[in-house]
Amino acid sequence: MNKQELIARRAKTLGPTYQNFFDEPLHLVRGAGTALWDATGREYLDCYNNVVSVGHCHPHVVEALCNQAATLNTHTRYLHEAIVELGEMLVKKLPGDIDTCIFTCTGSEANDLAVQIARHVSGQQGVIVTESSYHGVSHLTRQLSTDSYPPANRPDWLGVIEPPNLYRGPYRRDDPEAGQKYLELARQELDRLEQRGYKPAAVMIDLVWDSNGPLVAPRDYLHGLCAEVRRRGGLVIADEVQAGYCRSGQNWWASDNYGIEPDILTCGKPMGGGHPLSLMSTRRDIITDYSQQYHYFNTFGGNPVSAAVGKAVIEVIENEALLRNVDLTGTYLEAGLRELEQRHRLIGDVQGCGLFWGLDMVADRESREPLSEQQMRHLGSLIVEQGVITGTSGRYGQVLKLRPPLPFSKADAERALAAIDAALSQFEA
Amino acid sequence: MNKQELIARRAKTLGPTYQNFFDEPLHLVRGAGTALWDATGREYLDCYNNVVSVGHCHPHVVEALCNQAATLNTHTRYLHEAIVELGEMLVKKLPGDIDTCIFTCTGSEANDLAVQIARHVSGQQGVIVTESSYHGVSHLTRQLSTDSYPPANRPDWLGVIEPPNLYRGPYRRDDPEAGQKYLELARQELDRLEQRGYKPAAVMIDLVWDSNGPLVAPRDYLHGLCAEVRRRGGLVIADEVQAGYCRSGQNWWASDNYGIEPDILTCGKPMGGGHPLSLMSTRRDIITDYSQQYHYFNTFGGNPVSAAVGKAVIEVIENEALLRNVDLTGTYLEAGLRELEQRHRLIGDVQGCGLFWGLDMVADRESREPLSEQQMRHLGSLIVEQGVITGTSGRYGQVLKLRPPLPFSKADAERALAAIDAALSQFEA
Repeated sequence: MNKQELIARRAKTLGPTYQNFFDEPLHLVRGAGTALWDATGREYLDCYNNVVSVGHCHPHVVEALCNQAATLNTHTRYLHEAIVELGEMLVKKLPGDIDTCIFTCTGSEANDLAVQIARHVSGQQGVIVTESSYHGVSHLTRQLSTDSYPPANRPDWLGVIEPPNLYRGPYRRDDPEAGQKYLELARQELDRLEQRGYKPAAVMIDLVWDSNGPLVAPRDYLHGLCAEVRRRGGLVIADEVQAGYCRSGQNWWASDNYGIEPDILTCGKPMGGGHPLSLMSTRRDIITDYSQQYHYFNTFGGNPVSAAVGKAVIEVIENEALLRNVDLTGTYLEAGLRELEQRHRLIGDVQGCGLFWGLDMVADRESREPLSEQQMRHLGSLIVEQGVITGTSGRYGQVLKLRPPLPFSKADAERALAAIDAALSQFEA
Repeated sequence: MNKQELIARRAKTLGPTYQNFFDEPLHLVRGAGTALWDATGREYLDCYNNVVSVGHCHPHVVEALCNQAATLNTHTRYLHEAIVELGEMLVKKLPGDIDTCIFTCTGSEANDLAVQIARHVSGQQGVIVTESSYHGVSHLTRQLSTDSYPPANRPDWLGVIEPPNLYRGPYRRDDPEAGQKYLELARQELDRLEQRGYKPAAVMIDLVWDSNGPLVAPRDYLHGLCAEVRRRGGLVIADEVQAGYCRSGQNWWASDNYGIEPDILTCGKPMGGGHPLSLMSTRRDIITDYSQQYHYFNTFGGNPVSAAVGKAVIEVIENEALLRNVDLTGTYLEAGLRELEQRHRLIGDVQGCGLFWGLDMVADRESREPLSEQQMRHLGSLIVEQGVITGTSGRYGQVLKLRPPLPFSKADAERALAAIDAALSQFEA
């Protein structure tokens, strides 16, 4: 069907909650590696999609999926090797003393379960998240997603802390005490939460603060925050859907970059190359406590096909040394972005790590007034016209987001930089 | 790895929330149609698994999965035909005026979203479910699953009504007023809910009351319940994860069997042949109202691969005339089960429809004292020894559950009946 017909039939069948990216929605039909093709045969460089972490349609992942789907697909109430092998592969990589995996299908499910467990184990009901956070779409995780609903609707048990945004927040990069000052704000919010009658069950942290950035936090802030929540009887939940799985180029998990040891670590998007697979992982003492009262069974979670796919993704990361590629290409990409920052006054800040970078776009460098959502949508469309797909994030939707599949090459980085350069020149003209 | 090693490594990596079926857990390695094979090469007849609704590893479904996974797998913020085509195929089948599909990954996600929407649209917070219900494992849907946690922990906004169990409930098959009497109980619970300050946002009904049965309800009860909830401003949510997708052999949806028109219909397990795919469907006026305030984006939900798989499953149901097969084989199976009931006094009742049957197992037909969970586990294991896989459900775990893949044949039914016959004789001996 042609594009206009597709748009009309889509609107008719799926309804108005479904949104499209870009002024002119993309109709994609094929993907391979870091490339995508639309229905007219035009090729695009993908600088946005992290779900296909090892590249679009990776043959090793597709083969594992097909072989297992043609052989057996049941669930975890029968024994099967694949889920055990996947769990063992992950436990070797997981930070600190985390040694137990529960497999779910989406990041929402993993985060929802994490909070259920933290509340049970701590015996406390409060949860701390960041301003403009995103942690999922279930009833509970939507409440934890302060970017998704009006502040007036926040539940009493929710504490909301300032993200450690060293460019745009109240304390900035030139302040050596910034970490301690952000920590002090968090302490005050924990106090307010307790005054409302809620001690914290957990703090849930996206360790790259995706919906604010990406951000790189002061180390002392993060260590102080974990200690403070634990002192009050709560657990530390690292939501590594965005930050983990080699995205940062330094370690498998952002927790290890910062040297923190979360009590619970969750992951989702990048684990299955598009297949719905996610993880709630924790220590044995925590899950043993929880299991005294609750069982957990997820029909599709960790089924033989999901587990085979999960294993294949890890194998590709290892076989193709993607962590190292992220580090090398990421360093190269960063240098190029900082060079663009010199030449384009619309770029207020460059922040990120590995293959996750954000350009905080400003109308004015002095006031740091963000570009409007409409301007950002226009900029994104100009970059797409250059054949490169990017995204946006940030509290005001003002951050141009680059978060490509992990096999992103130096040539890909050069192409992305050239496209952004050209689009910015067009935008400024 | 051998079975004992697998059990040990599984326990070490996955922890104690993971349970196995049967005294001697099955280690399955291959499936095709209604057959499963374990690691020793032994073949079993599958009388339990509804997720693989069109049979294990159906070649048409596997082919659709592999072709799409090798071509493109992104998400719903780009245009793609498959999700639109799947939505259109479903809308043609969905009951009443339901015309809009939102795709999610699990039944929990679909039910969780359904209640979020019902609360928003009704402006009311109460929810009515059945005693011993199961609707999911997210924080919200677990609260709706009264079989999953102690009654003392039920939230104030939850109303819990008696399932219309005509064998084991307070009003029985010989009472022509049973439907109205169950309805009166529901009215009283709605009154109590309102007295606690909660008008109903919705009643959520599993139309086969799986975790109680399966049950077949009096038609007047169900119509009266829907009318009563609507009169108080609430919506009717049909959870058709268990009852729908041709399971009953009469219509695609159990809603149509009873002639009710739900405001929201959810489905999950049988939609993707094992692939995590689920559905929240509703009328345009409802989703339009909701979308005034909320967007909904589910990373994996309705992605090109999930949609291709969903389409393939429907195509198989149509091409192989599985609805008719369910009706024919189901009728044959029912006759055999009623014949077994004549000969085995342990069978207190035979209830169900299509290819979903429950044998309510009793120690004594007069008192209807249910077999214990341990006895049921033993009986299930005896049936497995006969090469047939069944399950259990019921408020006391006392129902032997038969819910095979839809291509179940008369020969399969004969084999299942013979195995149950033999196991019961052994059990009684």
